[in-house]
Amino acid sequence: MISHSSRQRSWQDIAKQAQKHRDETIAAVQPPVPDVPSDLPLNVSGIPKALLSEREIEITETAPEDLVELMSTGTITSTEVTTAFLRRAGLAQKLTNCLTELLPTRALLRAAELDSYLRENDRPLGPLHGLPISVKEHIPLAGLDCNGGFISWVGRLAPRDAYIITLLWRAGAVFYARTTQPQTLMHLETSSNLYGATVNPFQRELSSGGSSGGEGALLGCRGSCLGVGTDIGGSVRSPAGNCGVYGLRPTSYRLPIGGFTATMIGQEHVVPVVGPMSTSLGGVKMFMRAVLGQKPWLVEPSCLPFEWREGKSWLKEDGEGKKRLKIGTASAGDEGIEGVVAKLATIDGVEIVEWKPWKHDLAWEIIASLYFCDAGAEETAAIDASGEPWRPLSSFIIKENPFVKNRMISDVWRLTEMREQYRADYAKIWNDTACGANAGGAVDVILCPVTPGAAPPLDCARYWGYTSQWNLLDYPALAFPVTKVDPEIDLVEEGYEPRNEKDKYNYELYEPEKYRGAPVSLQLVARRYEDEKVVEALEYIQQHIGLPFVKMI
Amino acid sequence: MISHSSRQRSWQDIAKQAQKHRDETIAAVQPPVPDVPSDLPLNVSGIPKALLSEREIEITETAPEDLVELMSTGTITSTEVTTAFLRRAGLAQKLTNCLTELLPTRALLRAAELDSYLRENDRPLGPLHGLPISVKEHIPLAGLDCNGGFISWVGRLAPRDAYIITLLWRAGAVFYARTTQPQTLMHLETSSNLYGATVNPFQRELSSGGSSGGEGALLGCRGSCLGVGTDIGGSVRSPAGNCGVYGLRPTSYRLPIGGFTATMIGQEHVVPVVGPMSTSLGGVKMFMRAVLGQKPWLVEPSCLPFEWREGKSWLKEDGEGKKRLKIGTASAGDEGIEGVVAKLATIDGVEIVEWKPWKHDLAWEIIASLYFCDAGAEETAAIDASGEPWRPLSSFIIKENPFVKNRMISDVWRLTEMREQYRADYAKIWNDTACGANAGGAVDVILCPVTPGAAPPLDCARYWGYTSQWNLLDYPALAFPVTKVDPEIDLVEEGYEPRNEKDKYNYELYEPEKYRGAPVSLQLVARRYEDEKVVEALEYIQQHIGLPFVKMI
Repeated sequence: MISHSSRQRSWQDIAKQAQKHRDETIAAVQPPVPDVPSDLPLNVSGIPKALLSEREIEITETAPEDLVELMSTGTITSTEVTTAFLRRAGLAQKLTNCLTELLPTRALLRAAELDSYLRENDRPLGPLHGLPISVKEHIPLAGLDCNGGFISWVGRLAPRDAYIITLLWRAGAVFYARTTQPQTLMHLETSSNLYGATVNPFQRELSSGGSSGGEGALLGCRGSCLGVGTDIGGSVRSPAGNCGVYGLRPTSYRLPIGGFTATMIGQEHVVPVVGPMSTSLGGVKMFMRAVLGQKPWLVEPSCLPFEWREGKSWLKEDGEGKKRLKIGTASAGDEGIEGVVAKLATIDGVEIVEWKPWKHDLAWEIIASLYFCDAGAEETAAIDASGEPWRPLSSFIIKENPFVKNRMISDVWRLTEMREQYRADYAKIWNDTACGANAGGAVDVILCPVTPGAAPPLDCARYWGYTSQWNLLDYPALAFPVTKVDPEIDLVEEGYEPRNEKDKYNYELYEPEKYRGAPVSLQLVARRYEDEKVVEALEYIQQHIGLPFVKMI
Repeated sequence: MISHSSRQRSWQDIAKQAQKHRDETIAAVQPPVPDVPSDLPLNVSGIPKALLSEREIEITETAPEDLVELMSTGTITSTEVTTAFLRRAGLAQKLTNCLTELLPTRALLRAAELDSYLRENDRPLGPLHGLPISVKEHIPLAGLDCNGGFISWVGRLAPRDAYIITLLWRAGAVFYARTTQPQTLMHLETSSNLYGATVNPFQRELSSGGSSGGEGALLGCRGSCLGVGTDIGGSVRSPAGNCGVYGLRPTSYRLPIGGFTATMIGQEHVVPVVGPMSTSLGGVKMFMRAVLGQKPWLVEPSCLPFEWREGKSWLKEDGEGKKRLKIGTASAGDEGIEGVVAKLATIDGVEIVEWKPWKHDLAWEIIASLYFCDAGAEETAAIDASGEPWRPLSSFIIKENPFVKNRMISDVWRLTEMREQYRADYAKIWNDTACGANAGGAVDVILCPVTPGAAPPLDCARYWGYTSQWNLLDYPALAFPVTKVDPEIDLVEEGYEPRNEKDKYNYELYEPEKYRGAPVSLQLVARRYEDEKVVEALEYIQQHIGLPFVKMI
């Protein structure tokens, strides 16, 4: 808890105090979090393995669904698992700057309670029994600071848990780590004047992505196996993609968002969503099942009234009962996609057709216009109240964004009408049986990039289109790891003709050696409300071709 | 079609032309629609029976689900059914002023096509095969005028059918009548400068209700058996209740609203909904099933992704498999409710508890603030463009409404936050097991009034709270007929102390003799998304106690 009032102090002092608090919470972990080398290499992802015990490495590199199984059967205690993650999270902070605080005291108290519960009742408390879960800072935990990335908001203590936190708690979660987010929450990276930049564990000169970049870096380091992010334009998928983990942006109103700390609370032109981020696809599914099984719509009426629907398959079956998957692929030039497609093409049961992007510039114009209908007045007030400077990407998305204007109510209605028309037009394209070279029925999912390339250098994530497209359409979208950049293979394409200014900007960022080892990820997208289908489709793909193709950590 | 431009003419001329067009469409019906007595009695509901053939009376007083069955088996033709409804609708116009036009040519062409289809294929086209369906005017039918109640909008021809119309058409509907609506669509009555007032068939000095009052009066006269209304504050339920028929306001986004003509398209602070109105509960259910069975969410992505869910019962069963129904009753002093409750109390399986209204004034403040966030600028423009005068109830809801203001974007966000908080608070009350005298589990449904009393005299419907409450909460709500006012029984309560100014206003409207024969209706309400439950609960009630208690027509 950061207890001092921010009124009389400089923003620098407030930031220093916040960092001091964070460091104290890490120092409180027992056994102590090891020191890391002062001269860190660019790729720090392997360092925790050199500093933790074999047992700790084994625990923290186990998939969350397996950990829950082990804890639920009493094979391992939540106390031991929580301690291991506290220590590895502390290391992740020292390596990537991804935390706002650790919660060792309350986490170990909770873990001990759960261990007792299991001993006394001989059954787990719930479907997440004992599992340490990390949480993006602006999702409130009762009594803790909730600054949303603004210096002026430091000292705002959450009066109660956000409802999603309550549901995870009831399912048996242990909250042990809170993670960084950018100023305004509206960067596809993670830097603030409170904590500085969160960097990519695989290449520290690249970004962790954002805005849930603390989660991305922490998961990438295996300092967490399941975390809670939020996404209004790519903020779950960008860091998941950049850090080589799984991140689901569900359809809006599937997971509850009540009780959050952010600007523009009450705006519903583009609905922000909560999304699970995990080191495994099973972790994503376990999260969705555990939350939705509690029927959140009975308490938070904006939530959709159905659980995680997995009784019967979402995929079609052929005459012999074999599942079939029809995939539309976008950006056929993307090497990550080409590698996956080449393997998919060998699978009997998979059909691949080309998916042509449709008016993505219009999509960006609509969503960028709807993001800040008050011209960013609430963000501006929250930044300027402390005198902290604007971060480059805050300026980019608000001050330099030609679609940010002070809108009249009637402007917003017209933009909302455009949004609905765009959605209807896109639905029509999806319904069209002749959506690509191969006709004969709509595709099940779209396979596409998650970002313009691998993780960008700091302050360079200026193209949102690969992710914000699906926010505008409100389609469930799942980022997943495929491989890592290998400079010997992933050469600069000689004589490449950029399609436009944005493409040129992104193309010129690429220098093979600078990206060595950076995760390469893709995105799988299904129609609105088909969250279960997108997860099942990726399970199908993994079963058939294995993924990722290289070991991430 | 009203073909003349409205530019150069006075609003009176435009109105006269619209009425002339309407009358010509009625005059085109064959055999001709009979004349009605020039000196009409106050209660005109019985007049059609004196002027139509026995066969026509039988057809038009048959429930829609039975008519579809008869047509689908070839027992009766759609042509005969459509002709009967065209003639009775023509009479309804002469008695209550409920139509904007009849569509005899296109309706009979369609009916003949459907009759051929059945003969040739030996099966019905769809689940509404051959059924004449009436439609509120602002729901577009391709090529027809769509003025939404504004003189200045006369001459706007719909470029295409609204999507709900397409779905009904595909299910086999015959569109034959278009019905009146008030200026602005925002009255709980139905009067415009285009057509004047639509009156109540049971008492012509009382209102038909509104804004779907053309539908209400037409259905009340049995000039239709199934119609399409819209509801943003009570506009399906008020006319259904006032005219003694069934009207369902579904949860928002269950039925598609794409392609509508109205002001404020794109506003989603309070979502307008389409709702079926019918002479039978079975008609309401058939409508929902027929539309949702076509998976409208694949074309209009705002629609919720589930069909009409009726595989298993929505009611709990006791140990012996007997269905149980727990009902919360509001406004225990209401005589309609007391009569129903007295009968329900005798049913084994029904439990009745008191439901205390909760902050209804706050609910009205929130929804009334959200109705016209542009201070009614779009309505004002549409009215003033022709020079037509403001109707009293248009002034009431916009100019005299203290909650109508020109809102900033941030005001709307705060109001939306209040709306969500109100919904969450109400959910908490519903979840509370001790919601009344009898604890032990949440209620299934709430039974409450649909309007402050029976139909009000013209221009007196100034209290929306009984219906708008459920729009704010987005709960499915079903108006249904119970009995009729009998002045010998329904006396003025001596010494009644009105609870407040609004109650006093409504109380003083009541003079028993003026209300003789007016339908008395109630409303059954379930939680958000439980549209199927509210219908099943009313089916259960009807099976056990019969309803309505008197013959309506």
